[in-house]
Parts: sequence; C-alpha cells; structure tokens
Amino acid sequence: MNMNTDINSNKTITMSHGSGGRSTSELIDEIFATSFDNEILSQMEDSSVVAGASKIAMTTDSFVVKPLIYPGGDIGRLSICGTVNDLLMRGSTPKYITCGFILEEGLDIQLLKQIVNSMAETAREANVLIVAGDTKVIEGNGGLMINTAGIGFIEGDRSIDATRIKHGDKIILSGNLGDHHATILKTRLSIENNLESDNAPLTDMVKNLFKEGINVHAMRDVTRGGLGTVLKEMAVKADVNMEITEQSLPVSDTVKDFCGILGLDPIYMGNEGKAVIIVPNEESENALSIVKESQYGENACIIGEILASDTEYTAGLEKSLSNGNVYMKTPIGGRRVVDVLQGEGLPRIC
Amino acid sequence: MNMNTDINSNKTITMSHGSGGRSTSELIDEIFATSFDNEILSQMEDSSVVAGASKIAMTTDSFVVKPLIYPGGDIGRLSICGTVNDLLMRGSTPKYITCGFILEEGLDIQLLKQIVNSMAETAREANVLIVAGDTKVIEGNGGLMINTAGIGFIEGDRSIDATRIKHGDKIILSGNLGDHHATILKTRLSIENNLESDNAPLTDMVKNLFKEGINVHAMRDVTRGGLGTVLKEMAVKADVNMEITEQSLPVSDTVKDFCGILGLDPIYMGNEGKAVIIVPNEESENALSIVKESQYGENACIIGEILASDTEYTAGLEKSLSNGNVYMKTPIGGRRVVDVLQGEGLPRIC
Repeated sequence: MNMNTDINSNKTITMSHGSGGRSTSELIDEIFATSFDNEILSQMEDSSVVAGASKIAMTTDSFVVKPLIYPGGDIGRLSICGTVNDLLMRGSTPKYITCGFILEEGLDIQLLKQIVNSMAETAREANVLIVAGDTKVIEGNGGLMINTAGIGFIEGDRSIDATRIKHGDKIILSGNLGDHHATILKTRLSIENNLESDNAPLTDMVKNLFKEGINVHAMRDVTRGGLGTVLKEMAVKADVNMEITEQSLPVSDTVKDFCGILGLDPIYMGNEGKAVIIVPNEESENALSIVKESQYGENACIIGEILASDTEYTAGLEKSLSNGNVYMKTPIGGRRVVDVLQGEGLPRIC
Repeated sequence: MNMNTDINSNKTITMSHGSGGRSTSELIDEIFATSFDNEILSQMEDSSVVAGASKIAMTTDSFVVKPLIYPGGDIGRLSICGTVNDLLMRGSTPKYITCGFILEEGLDIQLLKQIVNSMAETAREANVLIVAGDTKVIEGNGGLMINTAGIGFIEGDRSIDATRIKHGDKIILSGNLGDHHATILKTRLSIENNLESDNAPLTDMVKNLFKEGINVHAMRDVTRGGLGTVLKEMAVKADVNMEITEQSLPVSDTVKDFCGILGLDPIYMGNEGKAVIIVPNEESENALSIVKESQYGENACIIGEILASDTEYTAGLEKSLSNGNVYMKTPIGGRRVVDVLQGEGLPRIC
C-alpha cells in the first residue's frame, strides 16, 4: 500500500479525510505522525499511556484564530503556547499535550502541513510531547480549528493560586501589552507595520523563577480579555484590592500608535506570551531580574501591588471599603476602577 | 452584579460570549459551572490541579455530530462517552475530563443548557469529573462543536495493548452494530423508526471484567470507521491474522432492514457504545458472561478468533501467508478479506 500517493495527490482536505477509514489514517500517518513523531504517540490506540505524577495540572483550550497565519506565528504555534502557558501558571512542568483538529473541507494540505510543523517545533521549544490526537472534517471554506489539552506535573507541595496573594505583594508583568491583539487586527485590516504576535511558551521564565527559589504566590497568563480582566478575576478570587500604575505598563510605541488611531485600550488587549506574576514584596526585585533575563521577559516590569485590606480608596465617584477591586493610577493623578472587559472584544483572536 | 439577568435575557449566543470578559464569565457561571459543579472546577485558574497516579491514559476527541440532538442521545452525552470509552479501552479508570466548546453565533441558549446538562449527567454516570473548560464563539448558524480530553489512572502493571493479542484468543463484540450510524442517518433523512443511538459509557462492563480477573489482552471501541476498520488496525498492530464469522455479528432487525434498503454494511457503520474485547480462549466464555451481565452488554457475543500465524488462507483471489489480515466467513461458506473503510463514510457522525 503506497500511502504517499493519496495525500500528495490531494491538494485539499475532503470529507473522506474524516471518515475514520483509510483516508483518515493516511492523513494521520503522512502529516501528524510524521511531524509529531514520538514513541508514545506511535503506540496510541484509543488512548495513550504515559508515566504520571502524584499532583497534576490539567487544562484545555480551543483555537479559532483568523487568519490562520499571521506575522510572528500561526494557529499551530498558538495552540501549543496557550496550553503550555496555562499549565505553567499553576507552577507545573508541562509534559503531555493532546490535539484535536477540526478541518474544514477545502483546507489546503500544504497549509495544514506548515501549521502542524509549527506545532511540532513549538512543542519541542516548550519541551512537551504531543501524545494523542483526533481529526474531524466539517463543511466549510478551508478553515481549521485546533483544540489542545495538556497535563503538567507539580513538584512536592508547590501551590500557585490566587488565594495565596497577600497585602504588599508586588505585581510583575512579563512584557509589552497588546502585541498579539494588534497583530491580528492589523493583519485583518491590511495595515502595514512591523508588529508581530508575542505568541510564545513561557517555559524558561517560569522554570527560572522556581529554580531561583522565588516564592511565587500566583500567576496568570494575559490572553483574551487582557490585563484588566485577569487582574480583576485575581483580585476577586484572592479577596484583595490591587493598584497598578498606568505609566508603568509596558506598551511598544507601535502598539501605542495603533491604539491611538483605533481607540483601543492596551489593558483589554489579548496577548499570547505574557504573564502576571505576583510575588512577595521582598522578593520582587530579584524576581523581576530573573524574568528580565529569561526568554521573552526582557520588557518585564513591576506594575503595581496588593493594597492593605482596609485601604479606603475613592476612584471616580465610587468609594469602596470592600475587596476585589483593581485601581489604576492615571498619569494625571486620577484613579480609575478597572473592571473585566465589557462587550465583544476582538472576535477570533485566539 | 446580577449575573442571572444577562444570560437569561439573551436567547442566543453572540460574539460577546467569546470575548473572555464579562459575557464569557456569565456564560461560564450560569451554564457550565452550574451543571458541572465540583470543587476542582470551581478552583480552576488557567488550569486545574488534580491528584495524579503513576501511570496514566490520556486521550482527546472532537465532536461535530449533526444533528446536535438525536434519538437516544445528543452531542453532549456523546462527547463524554467518546473520551471515557477511549480511556477504558487501555484498561484505565477514567478520572478527569476537560471540555472545549466552540459555539456558533446564534446558538439557542436553552439548547446549549440541555446539552451541557446531558454532559453533566453522563459524566456522573461514568464517574468522571469535568475539571477544566474553555469556550470560543465563531460565526455560523447556531451550531456547536465540543472537544473533550481526559485522563484515566492505570492500576499496577496492567497493560492493555494490541501487541498482547495471541493465537487462539477470542474476539468478543459487546453488542449490536450500527445503531448510532443508522440513527444519525435516519434522523437526517427524516425516516421514522424505533432506532436509537447506542451512545453509552462502558465503565461498568470494563470494571467488571477487571474485577473478575479476566486477562484482557486488547480492547478498542468501535466508533467511526466501524468494526472492519478497528479489527484491521488491531490485526496490523498485533501482526496477526483474525477470522470473524458474518453470521455471528449482532445486528438488530431494524438496522438490518435499514442497511438492506440503503445498501450499508454494518461492519463499517459507526457505534458509540460498543467494544471489541480480545481475551485468551480459555477465559472467553467467562468474559462473555461478564460482558452480557454488564450494563450495555446484553447483546454481546464471540464473533471470531485469532488465527495461528502460519495459517494459509485463500480469500477471493488473494492468497496470503503474511499477517495483519482480517477474514470474514460469509453465510454461504465464502471468505471475504476485511480492510479498513474506504471512501467517505457518513460525514459528521460523531
């Protein structure tokens, strides 16, 4: 049986690639198995068997970004980074990833190969193995959606959790805001500039923080919904108030200009390789240095802190003694209440 | 903040439900968290933390079935059964499930609630916890796709794997072929009959086999691609020849009639609650009794066996001394070579 012939004679995905029969297995053998090649995946039957650990982080993410390829990355790289970063944020070492492909009829097979190769390369960069997969084909116009799920192993009694956030803790942001969001939007609008998506796995950064013994209290990656949404969710879960300083927020000049023209607010723009890292005050300068020296962390800075629980703040017309609030000091000395993102955001950003 | 108001005042899903901001969190709180309610999910940040085990089975499956609701089940029930059964087939006890929802704009929120409730009910039946989730919204016409991924724990040195299949082993099929396939097709064709999908978790059956100490060599669930595809894949991986008897294959009269009219072959029809279980000859009658007494196993039977590796068979015009072949004895005494499904199958069956 010459399995090369069929896939290579087809230029696009057809319904038969979703049959579960010969065409599906040719697609798997020729494209997925070749790119993701590892011992565990090659032994997969209905599921794969992997070595475990006593404490595990587990997560899932679906990716529907349009366009499939954009400056700085593609849906394949994004799908690995998203799940790897979610696993890292609980202090786990990401280990095994599953991927579910939903292919639209008419998808260009060379494009699929390019995206699958990008996933494989990003998985190698993040040191995770793709151990199980699934492929479905639906009607459509050559699109592609990817789900990834993953597990990571957690060492000893390490616990990274918003409930550990304490008064006085400092808030580190690992780099510039808005790059992914602005890149997707400029690509759709055919605007020419030098922006690239920040889609990246934060493996090196998180590993270094733990290697250096930083007592990280909580971490979140700053994706869809943006920094504002993430901080507000953390403040509510931790039952604390936070204050950040608008002028401290790292935003590139290109994104600033872009936001100015389009009326976008960087604190609600999605990123795909940025983390909020909350650490004790006394460790914050050390933690910041470690982040800045790590891959993808060169623009990191301390953007704010956790307020004492009895701080009474007046922001705009609101006066609050309760917790779960995020305040932002503005450049002209005002204080703005930061809530989660309202409304639509940018559709199909990730 | 009155979170009930928003979701209940919306009748359909809009792009804002995919923003990652307030609307997304209302959707999660009001629909997913309410139905899937458990301690682990409620503590989810970017990922969830669960207790692990030293050996783990891991799998993923995306579900794109149309229609979303069909006699005997729905995409929600199917999405849990599919992943649970894949985990069971490696001898693991399914534990934790993640689910990724891709919602099309315009999806009826009451329909979504019904499907999510069905997932929750099936998860309870199968004794698994839904520990992490993700929601995306895309353009479309009110459709819905679900990815589930899961992990199961494997006891001791248990190993269920096609490579353990041996000469003389018997092949048990856990019940009637074709019910899910025929049900999806009759629903699309608006044919009235009493057919229902067999979508079911095989938790009880597999648990009973191990509880009674059956030395199961290999298992596969018989989904998309059908029995023919599954047996052929097993024969190739195990490097053995198999023979099944057409007359022994359990097929309901309704499905037989349906296949007769439409020219369908039950060995290539998809099922969603059927397993092939390969056991040593001397344990096969005992194993069959256990399966027949288990939930969803009442129509089980022994359908064939593994041939001696040097058996020389002539089937049609082919004469083969090599392994990896599946033969089927026909009612009139012929011998047919069974290959994997060729061509399209039924699109969007699962």
